[in-house]
Amino acid sequence: MPFGYVGKILHVDLTSGKIEVEQPPESFYRTYMGGSGLAMSYLLRMMPAGVDALGPENVLVLSVGVLTGAPISGLSRVMANAKSPLTGVIGDAQGGGFWPAELKFAGYDALVITGKAPKPVYLWIHDGEFELRDASHLWGRITGEAERMIREELADDRIQVLQVGPAGEKLARIACIINMSTRACGRTGMGAVMGSKNLKAVAVRGHARPDIHDRDKVRELARWGRENFEDSGVYSMSLHGTAAGIDNLQEIGGLPTRNWSSGVFEGWEKIWGQTITDTILKDRDTCYGCIVRCKRVVETKEPYEVDPLYGGPEYETVAAVGSYCCVDDLTAIAKANELCNKYGLDTISCGAAVAFAMDCYENGILTKEDTGGIDLCFGNAQAMVSMVEMIAKREGLGDLLGEGSYRAAQKIGRGAEDLAVHCKGQDFPAHVPQAKRSLALIYAVNPFGADHVSSDHDPSYEPTQDEDTLGRLSELGLIHPVHKHDFSPEKVRFALNTQYAFSALDCLGTCLFVWGPSWQLYDMNQLVEVIQGITGWRTSLYELIKVGQRRLNMMRAFNAREGITSADDVLPKKMFSVPLKGGATDGIAISEEKFLAARKLYYEMAGWDEEGVPTRGKLAELGLDWVADLLG
Amino acid sequence: MPFGYVGKILHVDLTSGKIEVEQPPESFYRTYMGGSGLAMSYLLRMMPAGVDALGPENVLVLSVGVLTGAPISGLSRVMANAKSPLTGVIGDAQGGGFWPAELKFAGYDALVITGKAPKPVYLWIHDGEFELRDASHLWGRITGEAERMIREELADDRIQVLQVGPAGEKLARIACIINMSTRACGRTGMGAVMGSKNLKAVAVRGHARPDIHDRDKVRELARWGRENFEDSGVYSMSLHGTAAGIDNLQEIGGLPTRNWSSGVFEGWEKIWGQTITDTILKDRDTCYGCIVRCKRVVETKEPYEVDPLYGGPEYETVAAVGSYCCVDDLTAIAKANELCNKYGLDTISCGAAVAFAMDCYENGILTKEDTGGIDLCFGNAQAMVSMVEMIAKREGLGDLLGEGSYRAAQKIGRGAEDLAVHCKGQDFPAHVPQAKRSLALIYAVNPFGADHVSSDHDPSYEPTQDEDTLGRLSELGLIHPVHKHDFSPEKVRFALNTQYAFSALDCLGTCLFVWGPSWQLYDMNQLVEVIQGITGWRTSLYELIKVGQRRLNMMRAFNAREGITSADDVLPKKMFSVPLKGGATDGIAISEEKFLAARKLYYEMAGWDEEGVPTRGKLAELGLDWVADLLG
Repeated sequence: MPFGYVGKILHVDLTSGKIEVEQPPESFYRTYMGGSGLAMSYLLRMMPAGVDALGPENVLVLSVGVLTGAPISGLSRVMANAKSPLTGVIGDAQGGGFWPAELKFAGYDALVITGKAPKPVYLWIHDGEFELRDASHLWGRITGEAERMIREELADDRIQVLQVGPAGEKLARIACIINMSTRACGRTGMGAVMGSKNLKAVAVRGHARPDIHDRDKVRELARWGRENFEDSGVYSMSLHGTAAGIDNLQEIGGLPTRNWSSGVFEGWEKIWGQTITDTILKDRDTCYGCIVRCKRVVETKEPYEVDPLYGGPEYETVAAVGSYCCVDDLTAIAKANELCNKYGLDTISCGAAVAFAMDCYENGILTKEDTGGIDLCFGNAQAMVSMVEMIAKREGLGDLLGEGSYRAAQKIGRGAEDLAVHCKGQDFPAHVPQAKRSLALIYAVNPFGADHVSSDHDPSYEPTQDEDTLGRLSELGLIHPVHKHDFSPEKVRFALNTQYAFSALDCLGTCLFVWGPSWQLYDMNQLVEVIQGITGWRTSLYELIKVGQRRLNMMRAFNAREGITSADDVLPKKMFSVPLKGGATDGIAISEEKFLAARKLYYEMAGWDEEGVPTRGKLAELGLDWVADLLG
Repeated sequence: MPFGYVGKILHVDLTSGKIEVEQPPESFYRTYMGGSGLAMSYLLRMMPAGVDALGPENVLVLSVGVLTGAPISGLSRVMANAKSPLTGVIGDAQGGGFWPAELKFAGYDALVITGKAPKPVYLWIHDGEFELRDASHLWGRITGEAERMIREELADDRIQVLQVGPAGEKLARIACIINMSTRACGRTGMGAVMGSKNLKAVAVRGHARPDIHDRDKVRELARWGRENFEDSGVYSMSLHGTAAGIDNLQEIGGLPTRNWSSGVFEGWEKIWGQTITDTILKDRDTCYGCIVRCKRVVETKEPYEVDPLYGGPEYETVAAVGSYCCVDDLTAIAKANELCNKYGLDTISCGAAVAFAMDCYENGILTKEDTGGIDLCFGNAQAMVSMVEMIAKREGLGDLLGEGSYRAAQKIGRGAEDLAVHCKGQDFPAHVPQAKRSLALIYAVNPFGADHVSSDHDPSYEPTQDEDTLGRLSELGLIHPVHKHDFSPEKVRFALNTQYAFSALDCLGTCLFVWGPSWQLYDMNQLVEVIQGITGWRTSLYELIKVGQRRLNMMRAFNAREGITSADDVLPKKMFSVPLKGGATDGIAISEEKFLAARKLYYEMAGWDEEGVPTRGKLAELGLDWVADLLG
């Protein structure tokens, strides 16, 4: 069996220290294609309902996909899945870097991690070998230090380290898992799960290379990518990072501002990608094999000293600690980003928690007594940075905010509940659902809470509503343009079908900036070609979308087993009752009636019952009869 | 707009004689891609429930697809759709030939025919022009004569004629529509619908050629086809016609014999394709642009004189008038085929009606008094030929049998009902469902009754269960082999997904011997490529399968409006209660309990309710909200 796509899976029981190697058949890989689809098959089989997300019974799967490690852009991503301590249901987070490819080169497609180590350990995997090593001396270290120490003690500078920072060790529910101290599996608190298992890090090094079925085909696709890169939708990210598009978001009223009270931010020009390039940019960084180089490396001295080891802020970070909080100081934003990466925090939920706290403060729900004397008003950059540091270290109010804004609001009470902007306990990412209406639906129904990379964004609202984008979307059968502010059946189709596509991306572990159904460098048909080229499978977009459907339906089944119903597939009341202020979305609120009708239609389109639970027929259609049996 | 795929549709009101040209937008063609998908969109919109299938309110659509007329094998097919006088629900039949390509060359993709002409007419379409012409002199003529007369009076030997024979004129419910006097749109009585409208024929001639988007790509696919033809699954049909596979059917107990009492026929070697080649074959014939040449031309003098103008028997004909009736005389079979083609009868339903009558006769339900003195016992070749002629001319018992075995059985009574082997009133085609278990399901649930070309045949029972076939099926996500005698979820998936694929073929108007998901010359991914090459659309197998789903769901919606429920999606009792005799299927009956469970699962997989009616969500997912509105 070619190493390229049929590899090995490592089962690690941290309680006993026992590690076993599994070699699943090719059909297993073909069914799930890797990533979080593969992970769900383990989580569903290995975990009963009702498990404590921070207990040893939780199962954490770290996985790559059948394409990972091939020498072409956008294929080096790691997926983290477990029951989420943030949402109480399924957790899911993805990150890029060199670690994913290196895991493949070391011989493994996934790590299935159970139990809890008696004391801090790290897992060392190299060229097929593996061992658990003591991590007592690494515990409490910030990420850059821990990475350096592991490389030093194993005497190999090219070791890749995926780890939790101090925030994950301290079980902050918004803690991330991070590799290269810059590439975060950010969302749903996967860092807290890893921390709860006393697993500080997974260090990997390998010298094998995937056995690619049709090297010429893959080379040809790589060449095509190089030749078409500068004309593609991702090129602006190469120039100015993921914050390159802030101008457009500002224009459409889609830049979340003042804890989601507005879709426009007057300081937007001070924080957008072009300004990063012009002021604090030191270098551009990339993931394994990728020509895009969207990652930023920034360095500042005054007023905040930012270490370039921790990269630079993504768009989501710029918005969360910037516009959410009305902070327009790019050095403060860069500092908050550095702190999150050092301590291992999800920048989105962290920034959202600060913005939530600011809203509470402005409304008198929190006072200086609560904040430890900090004047936590919107726009106070210093206050934002201090609060991020307190969250990272779980100090003072930061200890509470590290639980995420939803739990913090429950604890604070006094109306704070209405100020937390989340779905299923996970804070909104930086795209205003009033401006991108399909996201209003997807935020609500996505199994792991509000997420911006689980479906495509309404193209009518993007600068990319050109013929090429519409042509690409038509590969998914989406041949009619969608209109911006409606919940039409066409919009629901758009949401569901692009959700299937993105779900497939998260099985394959492809980067949604490089491969995807609309403005990306490569389209979905090219993704099918690269799967064919690497694996030799006679696959198609039809089969690939089924892979995406499998992952989504397994996640819904996981949640159903935990008791989730349609009552959990909702938006915060604020979205319906408080119109946005200013800009193109001034005065706009979402119609709850139309939202509920769209959700009903979405469930039916997806083959789910009126509570959003997959029917036996839908599961059987996907070859998931065994999942239907689990649901009873 | 390129002529190649966005053409014109002719609306013909026979009552008033008014003809109008419609030019739908490109999105219409992309949604349905032509053929019976396109037809269903008209039938649903133009016809209310409860219409008399033989009345002027019935709408008959004759259509080709977006690929028709391109110079590559297997793309010249015409689809006929209307409410069926045989089944009382949706009707559907397809045929090959040169007529389909010629209609495209004359400038049209479809004819939507309504009303009833005051006297017999024929429609003459040439290079965009059209007229209704008197057909009084053609009425009553056999097909070969009418074709010759039309060519003579229009003074062009290359005119293609699609017509009904005398059987259609006389409203036999098993009458076909035929072109070249050899290519039948055979099933569901479409010939009776055309006859009921006093429309004798549609004559076409055109000199335009499709504007192909990417000629090089299409040429390359054509070249690939020529180079791989001899190694392909269709090559045996080139050598020995569609009856080439009788040896395999005999081996697996899948050759319907003695009115479905057995799956083996001791005279099989006398009637199979190899014997046709060795004895009565005069020539091989083909459809427009096709290298396969599967069509037979036979000539016999003794004991039956058969005119080669009417081609030669297909496998289905060989079985229906042969093994169904225990007739092993190839010249009698060829004669029956010639009679059916001359008079315009569906050979399957005609042969099945004779076999049914023989069964009645053997059981004493019919006597010589009923048969006009004919000794209608199994194996009597002369009796079979005489009965076919009586059906063709609607004489004696033949008048009743021309209504189809189901209606004949109702009329005859006295237990005859148990001897008619049909679903929804349409006789079984020549594949034993006990041997090909997925067909047991598809026969029952197919919207237009028992059909063998609405899904793939279980590969575990075919000689083609090789790696290549399994690899091709995997394009549809069917990665696990299915086992022969079960109704497993995997089998239901196989049935449904190949049904989607075949449904797409019937929108495109592709030949299932040349393009398809298993043993055909070209696979489904190549079909996607040829659509891309001809139309320029960035389509995918995902979109194509949705096109197939659209057609199937529109047909189900049509039937639901007519009051069809799960009680109509059944098999004849005989399948459950009377085991087959002899050969590999000796002693085998179908488990009704397992069949019902499989049907339930099939409905759920398809997104239909427990009565088999598409849900609003399923229809909306396919962009068919308007169909959901029709269902209320």
